[in-house]
Amino acid sequence: MPLKPLNIGLVGYGFMGRTHSNAYKRVNDFFDLEYRPVLKAVCGRTEAGAKAFAEKWQYESYETDWRKLIDRKDIDAIDICTPNDTHAPIAIAAAEAGKMVLCEKPLARTLKEAAPMVDAIEKAGVPNTVWYNYRRVPAVTLAKQLIDEGRLGRIYHYRANFLQDWTISADLPQGGAGLWRLDAASAGSGVTGDLLAHCIDTALWLNGSIKNVCATTETFVKERTHTGTGKVEPVKIDDACTFFCRFENGSLGLFESTRYARGHKALYTFEINGEKASIKWDLHDLHRLEYFDYGDPAILRGWKSIHVTDGDHPYMKNWWVPGLQIGYEHTFVHQVADFLQGLSTGKPTSPTFREALETQAVCDAVLDSAEQHKWEDVIQV
Amino acid sequence: MPLKPLNIGLVGYGFMGRTHSNAYKRVNDFFDLEYRPVLKAVCGRTEAGAKAFAEKWQYESYETDWRKLIDRKDIDAIDICTPNDTHAPIAIAAAEAGKMVLCEKPLARTLKEAAPMVDAIEKAGVPNTVWYNYRRVPAVTLAKQLIDEGRLGRIYHYRANFLQDWTISADLPQGGAGLWRLDAASAGSGVTGDLLAHCIDTALWLNGSIKNVCATTETFVKERTHTGTGKVEPVKIDDACTFFCRFENGSLGLFESTRYARGHKALYTFEINGEKASIKWDLHDLHRLEYFDYGDPAILRGWKSIHVTDGDHPYMKNWWVPGLQIGYEHTFVHQVADFLQGLSTGKPTSPTFREALETQAVCDAVLDSAEQHKWEDVIQV
Amino acid sequence: MPLKPLNIGLVGYGFMGRTHSNAYKRVNDFFDLEYRPVLKAVCGRTEAGAKAFAEKWQYESYETDWRKLIDRKDIDAIDICTPNDTHAPIAIAAAEAGKMVLCEKPLARTLKEAAPMVDAIEKAGVPNTVWYNYRRVPAVTLAKQLIDEGRLGRIYHYRANFLQDWTISADLPQGGAGLWRLDAASAGSGVTGDLLAHCIDTALWLNGSIKNVCATTETFVKERTHTGTGKVEPVKIDDACTFFCRFENGSLGLFESTRYARGHKALYTFEINGEKASIKWDLHDLHRLEYFDYGDPAILRGWKSIHVTDGDHPYMKNWWVPGLQIGYEHTFVHQVADFLQGLSTGKPTSPTFREALETQAVCDAVLDSAEQHKWEDVIQV
Amino acid sequence: MPLKPLNIGLVGYGFMGRTHSNAYKRVNDFFDLEYRPVLKAVCGRTEAGAKAFAEKWQYESYETDWRKLIDRKDIDAIDICTPNDTHAPIAIAAAEAGKMVLCEKPLARTLKEAAPMVDAIEKAGVPNTVWYNYRRVPAVTLAKQLIDEGRLGRIYHYRANFLQDWTISADLPQGGAGLWRLDAASAGSGVTGDLLAHCIDTALWLNGSIKNVCATTETFVKERTHTGTGKVEPVKIDDACTFFCRFENGSLGLFESTRYARGHKALYTFEINGEKASIKWDLHDLHRLEYFDYGDPAILRGWKSIHVTDGDHPYMKNWWVPGLQIGYEHTFVHQVADFLQGLSTGKPTSPTFREALETQAVCDAVLDSAEQHKWEDVIQV
Repeated sequence: MPLKPLNIGLVGYGFMGRTHSNAYKRVNDFFDLEYRPVLKAVCGRTEAGAKAFAEKWQYESYETDWRKLIDRKDIDAIDICTPNDTHAPIAIAAAEAGKMVLCEKPLARTLKEAAPMVDAIEKAGVPNTVWYNYRRVPAVTLAKQLIDEGRLGRIYHYRANFLQDWTISADLPQGGAGLWRLDAASAGSGVTGDLLAHCIDTALWLNGSIKNVCATTETFVKERTHTGTGKVEPVKIDDACTFFCRFENGSLGLFESTRYARGHKALYTFEINGEKASIKWDLHDLHRLEYFDYGDPAILRGWKSIHVTDGDHPYMKNWWVPGLQIGYEHTFVHQVADFLQGLSTGKPTSPTFREALETQAVCDAVLDSAEQHKWEDVIQV
Repeated sequence: MPLKPLNIGLVGYGFMGRTHSNAYKRVNDFFDLEYRPVLKAVCGRTEAGAKAFAEKWQYESYETDWRKLIDRKDIDAIDICTPNDTHAPIAIAAAEAGKMVLCEKPLARTLKEAAPMVDAIEKAGVPNTVWYNYRRVPAVTLAKQLIDEGRLGRIYHYRANFLQDWTISADLPQGGAGLWRLDAASAGSGVTGDLLAHCIDTALWLNGSIKNVCATTETFVKERTHTGTGKVEPVKIDDACTFFCRFENGSLGLFESTRYARGHKALYTFEINGEKASIKWDLHDLHRLEYFDYGDPAILRGWKSIHVTDGDHPYMKNWWVPGLQIGYEHTFVHQVADFLQGLSTGKPTSPTFREALETQAVCDAVLDSAEQHKWEDVIQV
Repeated sequence: MPLKPLNIGLVGYGFMGRTHSNAYKRVNDFFDLEYRPVLKAVCGRTEAGAKAFAEKWQYESYETDWRKLIDRKDIDAIDICTPNDTHAPIAIAAAEAGKMVLCEKPLARTLKEAAPMVDAIEKAGVPNTVWYNYRRVPAVTLAKQLIDEGRLGRIYHYRANFLQDWTISADLPQGGAGLWRLDAASAGSGVTGDLLAHCIDTALWLNGSIKNVCATTETFVKERTHTGTGKVEPVKIDDACTFFCRFENGSLGLFESTRYARGHKALYTFEINGEKASIKWDLHDLHRLEYFDYGDPAILRGWKSIHVTDGDHPYMKNWWVPGLQIGYEHTFVHQVADFLQGLSTGKPTSPTFREALETQAVCDAVLDSAEQHKWEDVIQV
Repeated sequence: MPLKPLNIGLVGYGFMGRTHSNAYKRVNDFFDLEYRPVLKAVCGRTEAGAKAFAEKWQYESYETDWRKLIDRKDIDAIDICTPNDTHAPIAIAAAEAGKMVLCEKPLARTLKEAAPMVDAIEKAGVPNTVWYNYRRVPAVTLAKQLIDEGRLGRIYHYRANFLQDWTISADLPQGGAGLWRLDAASAGSGVTGDLLAHCIDTALWLNGSIKNVCATTETFVKERTHTGTGKVEPVKIDDACTFFCRFENGSLGLFESTRYARGHKALYTFEINGEKASIKWDLHDLHRLEYFDYGDPAILRGWKSIHVTDGDHPYMKNWWVPGLQIGYEHTFVHQVADFLQGLSTGKPTSPTFREALETQAVCDAVLDSAEQHKWEDVIQV
């Protein structure tokens, strides 16, 4: 029985364009599904770039105007991989055209910008998801499973870090390919929207809603050449951001992100301390989950390193055999697999636009708190 | 400019059939090459199985007799993923038909069986390679680079282990899907050909030839039901094998493999101790290389954990960004990339059949030594 | 040439009384010094306890009133190991009597209580030190050395944690032997004075002064039986405390402590991120220092685990041979060694009372900030 | 009630003289015992050295002839810390004089030399022990406890390494202070008697007797200046030794030791693989035990790192509080504590001379096997 096609129109062909394209191409080799993604068209502002990407990744066609892409009848789903400032118009237009929408994180630059996106999506009633891909690292999904089984008991602490070191050099410009993340106009914010958004998404999923936050930010390099104007201009993004918070469940949260932590490339880590057990994970060894179980015999208590590569671990029966690790890109394959599965079952693919809006609300509260030097309540969305 | 097609005929669709198929399908998304593999046909003994695999992995056709596959004009390269006892006839026939040959490791069950394969390949003059995939783990390739740069100095010790625990249960049968590795008739040997062959291949590559060996083997579970006969029969493979050896460069080697090391799934590790520096690696965290440099300032000496995910690390510029790890399957993609590159440049893809024959000679010496309870010289091939 | 005696009068014989007594008894076996501590007298409130401790540890005599101990002519130095609320009166009386004073940390319950202690000490001009023992873990002292050598460059981030899990049970009372730490009247505060004080002391030493702080605290178990009254009473200490801060050198600080982090017994960790290098350390493996050097060749960059057991590492030539680790108690031996050395050279033994006052000022600012829900400047002392 | 004195006469004041002296001086501070060791006399060949050591460590007197020491009526126990070639005469004379004997490992240079020592000790019926101190690392003692409780089930593999790198320089002489270990006349053998003896002792204790062995040795630096003759002479010790063996319980053993493993200072490690569980330990982090339990829920299986610092871990209730590690020297304190306890209870202190003889037999078989290039049976003693 042939698989049903799902025609994909990809907007943006940078780093995320590659991870998503790979996911679409790999998913049916490893997951049994009713649908098969078809790489119908990629859209980018420069024709040469769009064409080259289409050839490289075997897209059937390319466009240079996302509005045209959305107008095409042969496209079922719009996947948004562009800088943050363009997410809202593309997503809203796509939803209004009745397309499914898969949007890179964060949803938008601000809560205000993101809210209409959710409205449009929900009004259109189209399948949708936001690419907070780390939920689908098997070790992270396993953490969620252990929490849902009640193994941790009452939670006291949730802490997460996302540490990088790639912007320490003052010679790096703001704006341009790969560097729009340093340009506040494109990105909205610095580490808060780029990195802490991941940490917050995972936290909301694993530990529930956040009531209020108290934050501080820092910009270590105050001026950088802007690639748009060619001039040295003030840097308006946050190079580092730290906040503590209260979760609805009474636990204390602590979050930190920076791009100035020499020695860490992409060290997203989290740790959850419960009454009965604790969990730790980090992205640099993403195939492991650390677990401490107070229920073990006293003389045998310790942190256990679970090599999450067995067939009974989340998603892993679809890959290789025990002991053989998968990597970063597989998280996107898993999200596509769940999305396609959702088309068959009608089950939404978390995080939906609605769910991702809560992360946006926390990010807004964090940035407000840092600016106001005081605690801020998170707006309920 | 469209890529040149390379038409693949795959024989065998088990675990290795999947890793190879994945490699063919992914390689052009990540590597800039002149050739593109085309999944022309898969061949398996049962029609239903072959057909299902062809559909799943998008092979254009399927066969149930490998001789027919080799006869097909539209096939450029034969890839052998069948149990060890069938490698020789298929490889020889393929070479004689002028096909390129890519053969799963080990080359054959014995040196005697393997030698004519090399003769046939060299007589035909066809491009060829043997899938000792761990050479192309980026961290292992980096180890090779460091050694070739002379960073270790004189080598004193080379040690390697391959520890698993999946055959401890006495209820496991010998023979059958995935379990032909326990059947001496199919596999030739136990851990020696299956696991130590990997360790030996890496060692020969990194540390040069082995002069002589002294080994011991053990079979912990003496009898298992044979799936072919349905009867309980003696187990003739080695469950565990240990040997020490002398390398040509004067260093001492120590190798161990077992499938009875509770707690280890696929723990291939090696360590090399040189006068100036030492190196460690293990497959359970394959994206890391441990390095000790005696040239560091004395108070700062220590083992360094290199997260092999940067653009200047072997193969890594083709994947994601620093900090984001790849996994097991990528080693096969790298081997295909190098093979296709070799078609353009004329450079052989190591290990060739000729090179893999040396591993076979060591395996033979190891098994002979264990049987004879004495040191054995390795036959020079 | 016989060593000069230094007659010690110890007040308090709990956990810290043991660590100090051990240090006095061991120091001359391992360090070449002019002075030898003599265990002259131990003082405790209950005669039976004081007498038993004196016998066990070979003190020559015991007292039950610390005023009498201070009055004794045969005592050179008073060592204070009692609960925090008694540090001030004992230290002030001892200083006024012209005795040297060694005081357990924290100096006192509050900055207000501690300030007169410093006045008294400085007026008396007596040798003094506060037992922030972790400065003298060889790995921590090595960190100080590396920083002083300029190896880290500009500092961006300083973060420290002190995580424990021993008070999770609600059945634990407040007050009583070993549990005075849960009684605000005795301890002054909870984790802030007990654990964060250590983190702050190290931070001030390694990274300089702190300008201002923003904190939050939590008390998870709101009521516990008080051993003094026998009644269930509100718990007034902080079970957990988190704060971020600005250092004078422009770096961002982040500190967290809790006694509710299941799985951590005494996990004091710190990490410092500099432009050129980063450092990590943790108390659970106190003999190791993690070091990342951006100056390494790019392909060889990584975190290095330095096993701080060589003769050229701080304090280590006095102990065993490379590879053989020392433990927790040795930090106290080192502090005694430095104190005795200081008697010969006239060099103060850090941290002095004056230096420890700054930690007190930070603790006060932290607790004030947590209560006021706003940033607080640290009072300059 | 005053403690009973046990008058110690120490022969040899090198590295081991210090570890033992420290143990005698500390044991009563931490363990409740009936006896207290008294440092009566130290004996060394040079008067200046003996006298200086006596002063440093507070021995009451010193001798320069061990025969005189043995003759002294005020000595209860002779502790032998001299090079291996002198163990036998001293131990035999001491036993014949009715003294208790505590002897550094290995018992002697050869089995032949050691056997009469056991005879003399047993004929005299005196309390005795051999300082295989690693049995009393709390983590190692815990391993013994877990095995005795049957937690591992049938054992398949036992492997141990002792890796060092301190003799790589060819400029190092043989003979002289600390370097008698390189002189075959003094030491008997190289790494076999010095390092593998430790590994073998632990193995016999944890895993039972060894039936037969197959070994190889290597001497990387063939000639070194001899400090006795002042001439360059052949090096007759083994720089490296590797052997595999069969234990009586059917498990396979693998042992390796070298002083040419760059990057390892004193890396004694062992791992035991059982049907139900596995254990790992290493001396560089001696306060940890790694444990894998196949009985854990499948999705939660992993290697657990037990921080062996709790009150219910072996020996640890005598030290500090959970999380605070002890070090190398404490193993000697434990052995003294057990020896003194044994004086009260009449229980022998393992390993006794008799038990240490078995290690000697294995060492002999190993060296014979290496020389003969064949399997050797271990002589039953």
